Amino acid sequence: MPQPATPPPPSDAAVPAAGVAAAAAAAAPTERFAARTAGMTASEIRALFAVASRPEVVSLAGGMPNLAALPLESLAAEVGNLVARDGQVALQYGSAQGVPALREQICEVMALEGIRADPDDVVVTVGSQMALDLVTRIYCDPGDVVLAEGPSYVGALGSFAAYQARVVHVAMDEHGLVPELLRDALRSLAAQGITPKLLYTIPNFHNPAGVTLAVERRAEVLEICASYGVAVVEDNPYGLLGFSGRTYPALRSLDRDVVYLGSFSKTFASGLRVGWALVPPAVRDRLVLAAESATLCPPSFTQMLVSRYLAGHDWRSQIKTFTEAYRERRDALLDALETHLPDGCTWNVPDGGFYVWLTVPEGVDTKAMLPRAVTARVAYASGTGFYADGFGTRQLRLSYCYPTPERITEGVRRLAGVLEAELDVMRTFGTPARPALGAGGPQTPSPSTP
Amino acid sequence: MPQPATPPPPSDAAVPAAGVAAAAAAAAPTERFAARTAGMTASEIRALFAVASRPEVVSLAGGMPNLAALPLESLAAEVGNLVARDGQVALQYGSAQGVPALREQICEVMALEGIRADPDDVVVTVGSQMALDLVTRIYCDPGDVVLAEGPSYVGALGSFAAYQARVVHVAMDEHGLVPELLRDALRSLAAQGITPKLLYTIPNFHNPAGVTLAVERRAEVLEICASYGVAVVEDNPYGLLGFSGRTYPALRSLDRDVVYLGSFSKTFASGLRVGWALVPPAVRDRLVLAAESATLCPPSFTQMLVSRYLAGHDWRSQIKTFTEAYRERRDALLDALETHLPDGCTWNVPDGGFYVWLTVPEGVDTKAMLPRAVTARVAYASGTGFYADGFGTRQLRLSYCYPTPERITEGVRRLAGVLEAELDVMRTFGTPARPALGAGGPQTPSPSTP
Repeated sequence: MPQPATPPPPSDAAVPAAGVAAAAAAAAPTERFAARTAGMTASEIRALFAVASRPEVVSLAGGMPNLAALPLESLAAEVGNLVARDGQVALQYGSAQGVPALREQICEVMALEGIRADPDDVVVTVGSQMALDLVTRIYCDPGDVVLAEGPSYVGALGSFAAYQARVVHVAMDEHGLVPELLRDALRSLAAQGITPKLLYTIPNFHNPAGVTLAVERRAEVLEICASYGVAVVEDNPYGLLGFSGRTYPALRSLDRDVVYLGSFSKTFASGLRVGWALVPPAVRDRLVLAAESATLCPPSFTQMLVSRYLAGHDWRSQIKTFTEAYRERRDALLDALETHLPDGCTWNVPDGGFYVWLTVPEGVDTKAMLPRAVTARVAYASGTGFYADGFGTRQLRLSYCYPTPERITEGVRRLAGVLEAELDVMRTFGTPARPALGAGGPQTPSPSTP
Repeated sequence: MPQPATPPPPSDAAVPAAGVAAAAAAAAPTERFAARTAGMTASEIRALFAVASRPEVVSLAGGMPNLAALPLESLAAEVGNLVARDGQVALQYGSAQGVPALREQICEVMALEGIRADPDDVVVTVGSQMALDLVTRIYCDPGDVVLAEGPSYVGALGSFAAYQARVVHVAMDEHGLVPELLRDALRSLAAQGITPKLLYTIPNFHNPAGVTLAVERRAEVLEICASYGVAVVEDNPYGLLGFSGRTYPALRSLDRDVVYLGSFSKTFASGLRVGWALVPPAVRDRLVLAAESATLCPPSFTQMLVSRYLAGHDWRSQIKTFTEAYRERRDALLDALETHLPDGCTWNVPDGGFYVWLTVPEGVDTKAMLPRAVTARVAYASGTGFYADGFGTRQLRLSYCYPTPERITEGVRRLAGVLEAELDVMRTFGTPARPALGAGGPQTPSPSTP
């Protein structure tokens, strides 16, 4: 027997605390949730996925990479070999920090963007989303402020909300985050006695804005953050997907204190969920502990498959192949936007990555319009989902990564029709069109929306 | 033993140290961590793994399943086929809740323990550790109380600490958790105005205690928790690993409000990290959102591999094969304990699972003894790691899952020698032996320990 069962503690008969227990018992046991669950709401983008994935809908909403070019035959042989030869390791628990050989290879991948790193400072995670979630866990107490570009990645906003952090957006222009506005935001927060914990930034081929932080701004952004004691989190899933083949110096290459997040989801295969964080040693020790608490260890199997892929395949050529497909799709999207969209729409021209950020004419509400767009068999991600503060009603994100060029063109044609109809209503009635039904409240995602 | 009435000791690792905020303000940008990081400490068990994994050491410390019996050749063919035929799906993002076909199969697995469930209420996670971490995230605010058996699973204690929950242990006897002591603990907490959020329990082949909750106690435990409004979290990784082939009715089979955690780590392959939670609908919606924030989605690839394995292999026979190997190892351990250990040691006889919980003679401190054990080339997990409150100094966990029977016997012979030496010192000097160096502080795990 494991433990001698000790005598029960003294009777509490004299203590009248029955009221508390009675009140608690009245609530259903499953409903006594933590305060942080109030911030856990379905993003409008995710809520849309069920609808947008119907085959008749051209989805320009999702961010699924295009895997058509993957060499499945040789990968099949590789993974079979992995199980047959190294199955006893690949199918067994591994270390919380990740497979050592893969961490070395990750350093080689990061070297392409100027990063010199020690594999000891790399922590492999279940996609970079997990790294982001755990970095937030390590840094953010409830009420802490995080700076992020406006708009920003919806998954990051979700993690910040889950830890009850408050997001303050800093605007971008066509060259990315604007240093003067970053400085203004920090000065303004300092005046309120607030030092943000983090600047979360996607410097290359931004999601959703499509822009890249100008090289000459990078050191300045780092200096500003350092002077205010703000840690910089650089999220870089798209950095190797530039259409010119050009890469940019990572923020981490300029400053070893940067927390860098990387991923194989866009350069190899998203379904393996292999990402990583490169962090300063003081962060690493905590990140490994947090990772252990979160999943014990990342899957050995997927890590070893990525490691074998990197060792045995010409992964640089594969990225080039991917990138060419994305450029073709981007071109199709830009051509279609130019040809079909009504006057008053503006958009950026991305040099890499997956996204175009579109601004529609004043008076059109992209979230309100979305149900009509899906009815017209085209889906996009409305802009408000990329802001923590309600901005983005005139914006939407178009993803060109997944559909074929022909489908992209058809999708834009449909979107243009929906926009024309919105503008018609506005011209007729002089007010923005409003739908009878909302586009699905954040608390109630449903496949039947709309 | 239960310590329901006692306030946490000042040294409680889960309570952030005073002055954290002041120290943080002066710290470098990368060191302004959240208060919860104070509770993120390396468990003494994990800290030991690096040492215990040296080949000359017989490790009775880890909980690695024995995968030697896996049919690697046919698995290799299966996984190759998965990539070649369904690679475009298996290598792509999936849903946050998990692959639908696998969720249906999980319901069939759970039916073996009397559970009737809807696949809609299953959430697939990266090992059941992730489910446990996210359930804690959903339920526990800082300072909330969680009840757990004493001793309890070290990974659970880590998650509770990471969310700043306070663990109150309830003792077991040879029939598992003692209902009267559970009631006493709840009454005593109620007297302090405290309603615990959760009872975390491992009813079958407990880790680390090796005991199973008596069937006739199960309804009573559920009733007690219901009457106090405490949600029950049933963690059941070992339920199908009973040596007699017998299964026990899951708590979830008796009460649909139970949060049930399952895993393929012990019945198939730990390195795939595929686990799940079966939860009431109100919890499910929040759990899916939390999972999305944590990793976006679990790996499609590993989920689909498990699904194919369940569909195409005689997984029940495979579990039987695993179990026979574990029974042989348990027998070797029990025989060796009987033959070699000095008088005054007691232990349980597990009917399944991986663990024997050993109590050593009074005066011996298992944590202090560990460095000497590893020097003698045998490793175990000292008892204090399985308690949140410093108990367990006279206990240790022996895992018989991984080493061969011969190695187990040799390991126990070495352990007996170390124990005899401890007792010799005590007989000579009349005091417990103390090492010159500690067994590695919780904050400073190091491969060079001891």
